[in-house]
This record gives sequence, C-alpha cells and structure tokens, in this order.
Amino acid sequence: MAARDGCLFCAIVAGTEPAQLVIEEPEMVAFLDHRPVFKGHTLVVPREHIVTLSDLPTRLMVPVFGAAQRVATAVVDGLGADGSWVTMNNVVSQAVPHLHVHVVPRRRKDGLRGFYWPRTRYESDAEMAETAAKLRDAIARAGGTMAE
Amino acid sequence: MAARDGCLFCAIVAGTEPAQLVIEEPEMVAFLDHRPVFKGHTLVVPREHIVTLSDLPTRLMVPVFGAAQRVATAVVDGLGADGSWVTMNNVVSQAVPHLHVHVVPRRRKDGLRGFYWPRTRYESDAEMAETAAKLRDAIARAGGTMAE
Repeated sequence: MAARDGCLFCAIVAGTEPAQLVIEEPEMVAFLDHRPVFKGHTLVVPREHIVTLSDLPTRLMVPVFGAAQRVATAVVDGLGADGSWVTMNNVVSQAVPHLHVHVVPRRRKDGLRGFYWPRTRYESDAEMAETAAKLRDAIARAGGTMAE
Repeated sequence: MAARDGCLFCAIVAGTEPAQLVIEEPEMVAFLDHRPVFKGHTLVVPREHIVTLSDLPTRLMVPVFGAAQRVATAVVDGLGADGSWVTMNNVVSQAVPHLHVHVVPRRRKDGLRGFYWPRTRYESDAEMAETAAKLRDAIARAGGTMAE
C-alpha cells in the first residue's frame, strides 16, 4: 500500500499509531484530529501515501470526498452541529504531507475567527479577465485530464 | 436544470450574471470570486442548485472535485502559486446557499491569518472515544449511503 516511512498518517493507516477511527474502508480511513478546531474535527485520508489533491487519482475521489460527505452529515446528525467546514491545504499550510480533508463541525456564533478571511480586489476588469485566461490556459495545457 | 430564483450562482450558471469563467462543463462551472482572498481565487459550483456537500449526488462528485483538482493544479502551473487552499462551508459561514468549492492560490509567507486556526483539546481520552463513537453511530444510521 506504499506506506511512507516517517509519515504519521501512513502509520495511522497501518495501525501502528493510535487514532480514534470514524470510518475504515478499503481505500480510506477517517479519524479524529487530536487537536481539533472543534470537538469532532475529523480527518479523511486515502490509505495510499498521496500528497496533494493534484496527485489524487480519479478512482479515489468518490471514496475520499464521499467519506468527507458522510462525516459532514454525521457531525450534524451525531454531534448536533449546525453545519461543517470541509477544507484541505495543499503544500502551503499542509502540516502533514499526506492528503487529508478536514471536516470541522460548525455552530452558529462559534467564534471561528478563521472565517474572517481577508479579501482583496482586482485592480481592473482587465486584470481579472487576464487571471481567468491564465487559469484556462493552464487547464487546457494539462489536457483537461485528472491524475492517473 | 432547477435554477433557484434569486440564487446568484444559478444566475452565473445561466449566464444572466456576468463572471470570469475558468471551466464550463455539462455538470459544473468554475469562475473567479470577484472578491478574492488572493487573486485567482476560483469557485467551483455544480450547475444544479445543490445547497451543501451532504446534498451532492455521487454522480457529481468527480465532476465537482475533479474540477477543483484541475483548478488547484492550474493556480500552481498558471499563476505560480506554491500550493492551494481548497475549502467549502456548509450552512455556517456559507454566504451563498449553492454549493461552492473555493480554490485559493497560496504562497509561502502570504500572510493568510485564517490559517492560525484556534485549536482545542479533548478533556480526556474517554471524551475523544465517545465523540468518535457518536460519529460512527450517525454514519451507521445513515446506512453508509451517500446522497442519491
């Protein structure tokens, strides 16, 4: 299963590092973050050592995001949350270089300051159009294909 | 396509509200957020008026998260970002009640304070085990099935 030496999440997948498991399936596991943003904060990880979203093969998308969906529903149904925050960091701010989707229970007025996102503006419509064109070009160069 | 009256994102999908489009496909569109966290910040939305991740049918998972993947790769390849932040709010902090996956270009030392997430602790191992059990129970009650 291509475990990576020294990878904390590979060790949890292998069962050599303890974790409170929420879902165990052939392609993925979900377990509680031990330092949660809010209690019930769960991480969904593929069993394979995949680093970022860009590396995730299409065959693992439904296993991984379907599990995130089930946990997002469960934090409402099982923990009484009002909603959820489903988030992943790729490379920057990614503490463990093994893909993980955070599912964080949210409640109204829970005081999560992380949501006061800074916002900027485009200098002009032309700058915005040019930015979109660069993204379209990069996507076209990649051939519209997903990993694997 | 079940557009919802008064929904900004349904209007963008319908082409009645302008947007800088990044991807247009039968099931989804991606376009620039007009008030980006960082320039190139893109929103991926299903064409159908689906509200939260819990409501997303399995058949739309690869179209939606595959598109988020392609944009996450494109912000690196096309805009020179170091990585990306891929995030969605369900109900709480969800400004537009039409499912949208944010893909935000990230750079090292970009100063995004939102990433200084507050963290809490479980009072005990027992509390953590109990929280995991509640989630497993809620998932089991839901039958392990995903929407649709």
